[in-house]
Amino acid sequence: MAAVTSIMRAHQILLSQLDALLKPHDLTFARYEALVLLTFSKAGSLPLSKIGERLMVHPTSVTNTVDRLERSGLVRRLRNPRDGRGVLAEITPAGRDVVRRATDDLMGAGFCMDMYGEAELEAMFEQLRTLRVAAGDFVPPAA
Amino acid sequence: MAAVTSIMRAHQILLSQLDALLKPHDLTFARYEALVLLTFSKAGSLPLSKIGERLMVHPTSVTNTVDRLERSGLVRRLRNPRDGRGVLAEITPAGRDVVRRATDDLMGAGFCMDMYGEAELEAMFEQLRTLRVAAGDFVPPAA
Repeated sequence: MAAVTSIMRAHQILLSQLDALLKPHDLTFARYEALVLLTFSKAGSLPLSKIGERLMVHPTSVTNTVDRLERSGLVRRLRNPRDGRGVLAEITPAGRDVVRRATDDLMGAGFCMDMYGEAELEAMFEQLRTLRVAAGDFVPPAA
Repeated sequence: MAAVTSIMRAHQILLSQLDALLKPHDLTFARYEALVLLTFSKAGSLPLSKIGERLMVHPTSVTNTVDRLERSGLVRRLRNPRDGRGVLAEITPAGRDVVRRATDDLMGAGFCMDMYGEAELEAMFEQLRTLRVAAGDFVPPAA
């Protein structure tokens, strides 16, 4: 159980530290992750269903996240041209701008993991990859 | 950012799998953790403040967790004899019974981490220990 508890506690610690760093940008880590995902998409937009899938969050959470980002002018909703009933979230120029500034801050803080060296972070990623792949998580190749 | 995302995603995966395993016991992992903590305490009881500290959760969350456990008859609230204003949560015999059965189920499922060997789990614990200690988390010695 020690390893499970470690992951749970590490998550709590990181989330509270990352949320604190993102607060000045009026973001939470959940909203930041959604914006980053859109930044990396080819067209700057993704179906809400795809966002949920990639971030492994419930459709209701995606709706809330996109609602909040839309109110802040960081994304806008579009009808999905390839799926009449589907909705896309598209990142706005203001959204791209906030991601850039927030990422600068997070990188400055080493994503709250600057107690680790590059090799340790890679080892951690690789180790957790096993668990994620087993659960069907989309795991991008290590950069 | 890959290591941070890995921890976040591993947490989501584990939490949903553990909660599913605990559902037949009418527990969530948060409530299970609180019960386990009480099981390990000398008197079977701890101040609510101490529970929050150990599990690194907000006092409001502890109150909710203890409320829910009390309604299920798994803990009861006592006045803290050493602190007139403080409240203790004490695990009941029914609580100890549920922890035992829930732990059997979780162990049977390898705490949802049976894709890892003993050495890998220890390595993970040790690696995350650094992050937890830096944040002032109480980290028990590796068993």
